[in-house]
Amino acid sequence: MTQRYDRRGVSASKEDVHRAIRDIDKGLFPKAFCKIVPDFIGGDPAFCNVMHADGAGTKSSLAYVYWRETGDLSVWQGIAQDSLIMNVDDLACVGATGPILISSTIGRNKRLIPGEVISALINAVNDLAENLCRLGIDCYVTGGETADVGDLVRTVIVDSTVCCRMRRDKVVDNARISGGDIIVGLSSTGQAIYESAPNSGMGSNGLTSARHDLFSKIIADKYPESYDQGISPELVYSGSFLPTSVANGLLPDLGRATLSPTRTYAPIIRKMLDTVGRDKIHGMVHCTGGGQTKIMRFVDNMRVVKNNLFPVPPLFRTIMEQSGADEREMYSVFNMGHRMEVYVEPENAEEIIALSRSFGVEAQTVGYVENADRNELIIESEKERIVYV
Amino acid sequence: MTQRYDRRGVSASKEDVHRAIRDIDKGLFPKAFCKIVPDFIGGDPAFCNVMHADGAGTKSSLAYVYWRETGDLSVWQGIAQDSLIMNVDDLACVGATGPILISSTIGRNKRLIPGEVISALINAVNDLAENLCRLGIDCYVTGGETADVGDLVRTVIVDSTVCCRMRRDKVVDNARISGGDIIVGLSSTGQAIYESAPNSGMGSNGLTSARHDLFSKIIADKYPESYDQGISPELVYSGSFLPTSVANGLLPDLGRATLSPTRTYAPIIRKMLDTVGRDKIHGMVHCTGGGQTKIMRFVDNMRVVKNNLFPVPPLFRTIMEQSGADEREMYSVFNMGHRMEVYVEPENAEEIIALSRSFGVEAQTVGYVENADRNELIIESEKERIVYV
Repeated sequence: MTQRYDRRGVSASKEDVHRAIRDIDKGLFPKAFCKIVPDFIGGDPAFCNVMHADGAGTKSSLAYVYWRETGDLSVWQGIAQDSLIMNVDDLACVGATGPILISSTIGRNKRLIPGEVISALINAVNDLAENLCRLGIDCYVTGGETADVGDLVRTVIVDSTVCCRMRRDKVVDNARISGGDIIVGLSSTGQAIYESAPNSGMGSNGLTSARHDLFSKIIADKYPESYDQGISPELVYSGSFLPTSVANGLLPDLGRATLSPTRTYAPIIRKMLDTVGRDKIHGMVHCTGGGQTKIMRFVDNMRVVKNNLFPVPPLFRTIMEQSGADEREMYSVFNMGHRMEVYVEPENAEEIIALSRSFGVEAQTVGYVENADRNELIIESEKERIVYV
Repeated sequence: MTQRYDRRGVSASKEDVHRAIRDIDKGLFPKAFCKIVPDFIGGDPAFCNVMHADGAGTKSSLAYVYWRETGDLSVWQGIAQDSLIMNVDDLACVGATGPILISSTIGRNKRLIPGEVISALINAVNDLAENLCRLGIDCYVTGGETADVGDLVRTVIVDSTVCCRMRRDKVVDNARISGGDIIVGLSSTGQAIYESAPNSGMGSNGLTSARHDLFSKIIADKYPESYDQGISPELVYSGSFLPTSVANGLLPDLGRATLSPTRTYAPIIRKMLDTVGRDKIHGMVHCTGGGQTKIMRFVDNMRVVKNNLFPVPPLFRTIMEQSGADEREMYSVFNMGHRMEVYVEPENAEEIIALSRSFGVEAQTVGYVENADRNELIIESEKERIVYV
């Protein structure tokens, strides 16, 4: 599947991008989940700045198809959430839970994406920001840019950038992850008390694979603007389903299940930092690009053992069946059950689990960390033991 | 040409986007060039925050074609500059000349855009930031995101977001533009003392028109990934030239002249704010989308008369000849000779002109403002008098 992934013009590990930025300054806390720089805009040596960018990726291509098929504008609310939460939850991993400034960058093909879609996206960002404020994550929408760039963008691309200023002594730095730490995983499925519908577990990564592996050639023929026609035909929409198909109990249909908006864990993390204590949190990893292997970018000479993972959610099982991918690939692209993990000493695990459950988000100890003489990740799935080095 | 522009999937005035954000809060200074919000991240009532997003637009499509034709990677430095300066010069219009945090968002088709292009873009942003610091515009690159989104992006899209914190009493607010003001235009051509080559005058807007009107069908056939195949064929690369053609004295060739990197006026503006005095500057307009008509978004009941414009630079004359567009359209899409204008009382004009010239940037009084009972813009070109209401 790595090969399939590469041939579709994406990469889970973005080797060449990491090579491109290899020599760039890594900021004040080189192992922190986000780059953290001095308080350039405040000038206070006790503070620091975090500016971060991410987006909904190719999830917007599926939203486009679903909207065209059904007329359901609400999918764009989900895309706005995807784009924003991919940033907010990255920030939360360094302990930055607000105040946060938000800016949106939308690039559209005006021929295909009318003002009502732009309105839906922009209004959704504002509504989401209001909701986050109510949940204790102070944020402020500063505006953004909508560019008409049909010669670049087939349908629409939705990105966000966030900016935060915080005390340096409040930064959660993954450099503190140590041998002996326990990993608490926060489920990506179910329904949090602050959510209006159950979540399938999908975040905003792996969507190029998920879309092409789940959905059928009928979509390619009907919406050629929804994919890169330079991809080998056997990799294009090679699945069995329509976005409106019902399969494996995924409701209301496979399209909506795949479009399930990226859950935020920020309200839980905020409360955890306050009640468990920042000093107790050795690190946090938002399992986005790289899926369950993402932790490996933040440790040196550690063996990370994930031997008690959540059952694989039905959506990921369906993607696996449709793609024929093996578990090694699936765990390195998708979150497979938890999209947030917290690294703590064993005595703090239960408190975090109880706290997450109090928000309606299932949590459990998913593994542990050992000192080793090189980096190694062991994933024990229901069927096999997978070693990544 | 408005119709040509619309049918190509772009709009100079973005009516539907403006409708979409009509009811969104306009910030502390509703007429300021950028949205300005309270000091959300600093909490000081004497300060405010400006976060702003923009990008190189479809100029990157031409950079792609030129790079493929010639192998010249340096075009990507220009695209990085376009993306960054479109933001920096917008900020300068509200008097925000640093410190500035910078984040980049790159969306690429990995099949077509290799790591060396990403490296060139990222390194260029870092080099540019260093140069801006040397020129008195303190800025800091915080990182960014490179996403592999070939199903969304045909080649590559390059956006930037900037964030600035400043004193509220230092904001330049276009609400102060008044009847009796003189408009000083700062030339978009020539070579500033801080530039390494002469500038054609092209910024980063109007590139969809410029590209299709200048370049020939040969480009469409050779690089179908460089445009939206949903556009009517008669509007696609309807010009006579190749990017490597030499025409109308535009050097080294028409491709490079069109790719001429967006000039920054920020060092000049910074010095102007210090020496002429912020209180003397009633307003500034960065003539980007909307070209010479952009001022109309910032005034009420004013007649803006531009009766002494710069001679139309050769690149814009060439675009006009090739497109058959009339002057009314050209002035509402392109800057046509000056990309920055400063609104001041008549007695301050000469000092600003002298200051700009001291940086090697030609400047002149291009017009004036009168009170009126509605908004009206009059452009007196070499040939005609154009009235916009």
